[in-house]
This record gives sequence, C-alpha cells and structure tokens, in this order.
Amino acid sequence: MGRRYDTISFLSDLGVADEHVGVFTAIVRDLASHAQVVHLTHQIPLYDVRAGSLALARAIAYVPSGVVVACVDAGERQNIAIEVAGGEGVVIGPDNGLLASAISMAGGAGRAVVLDNLEYQLDSPGATVPSRDVFASVAAHLCNGVDLADLGTLVDADTLLPGVVPLPRDAEGGGVQADVLWVDRAGNCQLNVGLDDVAPWGVAEGVRLQVTAGDVVRVAQRVAQTAGLGAGSIGLLVDGYGLLTLALERRSAADELQLTTSDHVTLRPLTEGDAGPGVTVPVSLRPTP
Amino acid sequence: MGRRYDTISFLSDLGVADEHVGVFTAIVRDLASHAQVVHLTHQIPLYDVRAGSLALARAIAYVPSGVVVACVDAGERQNIAIEVAGGEGVVIGPDNGLLASAISMAGGAGRAVVLDNLEYQLDSPGATVPSRDVFASVAAHLCNGVDLADLGTLVDADTLLPGVVPLPRDAEGGGVQADVLWVDRAGNCQLNVGLDDVAPWGVAEGVRLQVTAGDVVRVAQRVAQTAGLGAGSIGLLVDGYGLLTLALERRSAADELQLTTSDHVTLRPLTEGDAGPGVTVPVSLRPTP
Amino acid sequence: MGRRYDTISFLSDLGVADEHVGVFTAIVRDLASHAQVVHLTHQIPLYDVRAGSLALARAIAYVPSGVVVACVDAGERQNIAIEVAGGEGVVIGPDNGLLASAISMAGGAGRAVVLDNLEYQLDSPGATVPSRDVFASVAAHLCNGVDLADLGTLVDADTLLPGVVPLPRDAEGGGVQADVLWVDRAGNCQLNVGLDDVAPWGVAEGVRLQVTAGDVVRVAQRVAQTAGLGAGSIGLLVDGYGLLTLALERRSAADELQLTTSDHVTLRPLTEGDAGPGVTVPVSLRPTP
Repeated sequence: MGRRYDTISFLSDLGVADEHVGVFTAIVRDLASHAQVVHLTHQIPLYDVRAGSLALARAIAYVPSGVVVACVDAGERQNIAIEVAGGEGVVIGPDNGLLASAISMAGGAGRAVVLDNLEYQLDSPGATVPSRDVFASVAAHLCNGVDLADLGTLVDADTLLPGVVPLPRDAEGGGVQADVLWVDRAGNCQLNVGLDDVAPWGVAEGVRLQVTAGDVVRVAQRVAQTAGLGAGSIGLLVDGYGLLTLALERRSAADELQLTTSDHVTLRPLTEGDAGPGVTVPVSLRPTP
Repeated sequence: MGRRYDTISFLSDLGVADEHVGVFTAIVRDLASHAQVVHLTHQIPLYDVRAGSLALARAIAYVPSGVVVACVDAGERQNIAIEVAGGEGVVIGPDNGLLASAISMAGGAGRAVVLDNLEYQLDSPGATVPSRDVFASVAAHLCNGVDLADLGTLVDADTLLPGVVPLPRDAEGGGVQADVLWVDRAGNCQLNVGLDDVAPWGVAEGVRLQVTAGDVVRVAQRVAQTAGLGAGSIGLLVDGYGLLTLALERRSAADELQLTTSDHVTLRPLTEGDAGPGVTVPVSLRPTP
Repeated sequence: MGRRYDTISFLSDLGVADEHVGVFTAIVRDLASHAQVVHLTHQIPLYDVRAGSLALARAIAYVPSGVVVACVDAGERQNIAIEVAGGEGVVIGPDNGLLASAISMAGGAGRAVVLDNLEYQLDSPGATVPSRDVFASVAAHLCNGVDLADLGTLVDADTLLPGVVPLPRDAEGGGVQADVLWVDRAGNCQLNVGLDDVAPWGVAEGVRLQVTAGDVVRVAQRVAQTAGLGAGSIGLLVDGYGLLTLALERRSAADELQLTTSDHVTLRPLTEGDAGPGVTVPVSLRPTP
C-alpha cells in the first residue's frame, strides 16, 4: 500500500482556544508523518454550516490535491467522505450540506462513503470527538493509501444533504434583492450577486446604483477598487471571487450600512429622476467611526 | 550525533497577537530544519498554569513521540526538561507544576534537568524571552540529537513542583462536589468527575441527577449525547476525555448554569421525593440567548 | 532551475477569521511543496503599517534564510521584492514603508523589483487579492529558483518608501520623551528608548525615574525583571529586544498608566527633592483589576 496524498487542508468551527485543532495536527503527524496539514481557518462561527460552506467554496480552487477536511457543526449527522476530480482529492466532513458547494466547484462528486468503519478511527474514552476520533485518523489513513471504499459503506452521492446557497431574487419595484454572504475583517460586504446578475442594467465602472439596506438608502458607485472613492462614498466592486461587494475606502461598509451576514440588500438602477432635485436619498447621520 | 526527534508539540499562553509564537517556529526551522512544530494551542489564559496543565494533559496521549514544549507563566521559576516513555519523548517547560499531569499520563518522569547550560540557549539583548531564548533553541537541539544531560544540571524529578489537580469531594448532604475544569467553545462544562466517582448511585443513561451551581438548582439527565435533549434540558455526558460534562443541545451550559472555570458544582442523586409534586426544582427565568 | 529557498516567513494584517491565510499556505504547498510557511503573526491591526513594521523588525533576526512576506495594508501601493544579505533572503510586501526597518536590520537592500510581471502571479476573477494572487505565488516561485529580476522591473531601493520609526526626543524640562511602540499580552509597554538614550543619567539597576504618561505621574524603578517588584510598583526593564519597557509584576502597565500604542511617555531622572516630603507624586486611585 503506497502513500497516496501528502496534504490535508483543514477548515473548522473548533476555534483555537483549546487543543482540538492541535490534536488533529498531532494525530496526522503521528499516523502519516509525510503529510502536511494546511489550516484554512478554524474561526467559522460555531454551528454555522452556511459560513463554513462559503469559506470552503472560496478556498477549494486554491487547495492542493489531497484530502480536505471540513468540520463545522459535526456530531449531529453521520460523517462522509467524497472523492472529487477523479480521485485527485477526497473531501471529508459531516453530511449536513457543508461540503456541497466545494464539491460542486471541484467538478462534482465521485465515489462517496459513510465513515462507519471504526477500524480507521480512534477509540474515545467517552463521547466521540469528530475532529480527533474520526476526521484526523481517516484523513491520515487516506494519505497512507487506504482506499475510500475501505473507510465505510459506499453510498450514492445524490442521497447526501445538498448545500443551501442563497440565490439573488428580483426585488419588488425592480432591481435585485441580494444576501450578504460574508463580512470580512475590513467590513466589506460580499453579496450573492455576480456581474451577470446585474448585466441588464449595464453596470460598467463609474455607473451609480441605489442600495437599500433596511432603512438605509444610499447610492453606490461601481468601481474597480476602493482607493480614491473618497470618505463615506460607497463602492460596489467585483471582489477576488467574482462577486459584487459593498466596500468603502479604509472604512467598514458593514458599519456604514448597518449590515451583517445574511442581511438583505436591494440593488436598483438609478433612474433619471433619482439624480434630480426631488430625489430622497437619505444620508446616514451617524458619526463616522 | 544523529537526529533524534522530528516533532515539537508546543502549547503556551503567548497568544498570537504578536510574533512570539512565530519566532519560536522560525528558530526551530533555522536550527533543526527536519523538525515540525505542532501548535497545540497558544490561547491558554495568561499566567493560568492550571488551564495549561489541563489542556496539555488532555493532548498528551495524541502527541507524536518527540519534544513537547509547554510555556505558561514562564520566567518566574527555573526551566526544566524531563524525559518520558523511556526517552521516546522529552517534556520542556517552567518548573511551576504545569507539566506534572501530562508527565504522569505519559508514564512518569525519567531523567530530568534544569536548563542551566546556556550553550544551547540564545543570547538576548536584554531580558530573557523564555519561548525564544530557551525553549525553541533547546527543543531544536534535542531534535538534532543533543542529549538531555548536556542541557543542564541533572535533578531528581521528585524535587520538582507537583501539579495541582482538584479532586472531587463528598458534598454536605450527600453527593459529590465537583470543580468546573474547562468551559469549551460551545459552553460545555467539563467536571473533575469520572463515572467511577458517581458509580455508587448507578448513573446509567437516562438517570436524572440534581445539579447545584451556586443558587441555581436544576435536574440533569445522564445522556450519551446532547442531540435530542430538547431545548433547555441539561445533559450530563461522558466527554471525549472520560470526564462528566454538563451540556445542552446547541446551547451553552455555562450560560444556562452561570458557570465558569473553577466554579463548584454539586451532583446529587435524585430521591423519590424529588420527582413528586412537592419538590422545589427552581427553573432559571433568565431569557435564553 | 534549481530550488533556491525552502522557508517562507509570513506576517500580515489578514486575521484568521476567514480563509485568506490558509489559502496563502495552500498555494505555496501547491506550487512549491518543498517549502514551509512559518506564520509569524496575522493579527497586526488592520492597515497598521507601523505595528507591522515593528513586529517584522523584532522577528527578522530569528527568521531562517529564505523568503519573508509582509502583507499589511496591501493593495494601496505597488508591491515590491528586495534582496537582503547578499541574496540569502528576499523580503516581499507593499511599498508603504512596512519593510524598511526589517531590511535595515538585515543589512540593507540589495536588488529590488516592482512585482509587475504577471506571469508569476495568479489571475483573479475580480479584484486582485494581494496575499493570494501576488505574494503567495511570487514567494513560491522564488523558492523554486525563479530569479528576482524575472519577477518585475528592477528599481533603485533608494526610491522606495522609507519606514517611519519614531525617535525619542528631549523632553521639555529635561528627560526624554518616548513613544509606546507596543503593548504586549501582559500589558508591558515597550518604548522607543534604549539604555543608551538614558545613559547620561546613569540608569543602573535599582535607580528610580519619574514617569509621566498624560496626567499620570509615577516613579519607576530600573529592574532586571518584574519578579519581586511588589504590587503596584512600576518597573523599567530592558526587554528581549534591548528596549526599555514599562512593566508591573503580573499586572498590566498599560492599564496602570492608561497607556496604549503610540502614546507619549516622559522619563526624567529623579532629583533630590523628588524624594522629599514636598514632592507631588500622584498615585492612581483607580481600583486595580
């Protein structure tokens, strides 16, 4: 049995305040010393399958061939492993929809198993700790050349829980109603909208749009970057994942627009009248931080 | 002199807001490029030897053979290195009780030295930074094959500071008085009590116990997992380390019971009367988060 | 083309709440699997070039030969790569002053290029993500043996933005006015002052100085370590970088003196009279935490 993979990319909601992530790495090092663990992030909000799914989907195109472990809200449902890219990779995690987007971006599912063969897992003195007793051990054995089919019962990938990806909808009164997918460290708000979704309006750089976020109605300008926008002006740019993102220059769009993850935002084309004197475009009066 | 170890597992209270943990890794990479650093956790609360000791003890069984560095509240006492498992491993850290539980779990101490040979340590332009000037350098030299006895003065391990592990006590009025050892990211409260400690009451799954935490008196049910407990019901499960743990289903037991690390909790068997109509089992009226 | 470097030391303001740091590691693993990433810290405050510059300068002496990537407030200015130590190392980052101190400590700049050859960078579906599309890819290619000159346009290092290192000044009424460079996890306040700067006063261990921080005027004692200072007493020690640092024994000097990064502090020699009965040395009345 020859070594098969040498990288395990790992994403979780475990946090790093205790030793769980470290123990995962330790077990891999112990069982498959040739394999490296690439820590994608462990700060997915606890239980937040949607956020984990998004971060994994954004990362998957950059992950080396090998094993990918995603551990978010694990323990509630059975654990699975799914081959992708003709066996170039295996994605492991709970069957709770977490893996679906990433697998789709990696070209779709090949063979799939439920991880019910305890031979490749660790015994626990009590409750099973999924990251430790299941995922670390299974990932290491895959790196060592164990075949997917030996890890458990083969299942049809179509029977696994699909992911939930919010799609943009037509807004009442015209425009697109979007969801905030992610707020990053800088406060940029990534939307579930690509340029294609607003293509009918011809949103070239420089074009201005109306942005409605709860009670806040503002104008955003389509830009290539926030540099040069000027204080308080809202930019709408295509971010590094091809998605429209609300952003300010060195300030938080999330603060300015009072937005957080999963909030709705409506984008509308500005009509002639919107630019005229009678338009009501309220401006936030809150002090800027 | 041949290479001896190729893994350094590292736990600390250094945090990651500055470069200290990174500099540790850099020094190891520089001095012993064949060795890998496994970061267990660096978020042990500052100066909290007890918390560091617990996390290290929980991790030690999963750590590969090699060097283990624990750096919590370092700088106050002399630094030591202790062989375990017949030389399969060396545990390094301050002589402040931090290492005792882990060494005991690894089978007890073999040779021990005080790290007073500066030849294997780095010079500092000012005060010594233990993680950088002592531990990183010493750990790397051990990986390179330097013998423990060359690192300093051999001492009797029995003269080193023992750890302080709180033991459960008999509670007034019956039952067991426990300590909260750890509160994890999900708010589960790990107690210093194993199933053996409550065995006289026959705590099989499904059995209910009285839990007293400060002014809060509640009933907890012995379960194998929190799934299915139902909103607000308190579960008592054997966690992945074999210890009894108070846990709710997708909610924080620490919030529900107003518990934090080191708090006392009393577990008592429920008597016949406790289940009857006259029983007073106050229910928390605080809003659930 | 032979492999050239095998370590990439990485410091940033990216945080670890999302997958950016992980994707950097993944790309390096994919493109240059022999190279190891040493994560120095990713918690530099967002946009804080000064803080990033300081942490990098403190770390640089301990970093193995190879590539160093610093990514703080990237995206505003062009990205550069600079050889140091006769080609033993290459430092990469934005041309915003971030790299200057570290390069100076590494012996000064050799060849320098603007990273404008897109052949060694990744395409983005939208805006460029510097850590992902530029730095990870360029660093990996350097490890693989690509020559610096192939990465872009050679420039004179003297034309690059210098760093801004605050220097201590003479204080009004005598003494030295210092800046707080850094507040660490323990609340110790590192100043931009070395022993040389206060040498005229003869600041041997045991000597006492007046410390003025805003409205707070206190006496600090020059010590080798905080152990033994006693509750509430302020120590002034030479820290592990050779800089004077205000520190208390197991308490936060930043809290005690109400100091934060970039605040000014004045150090003055105590005169005879200061020790006498007429002196006004206000003592903070705030409760100690």
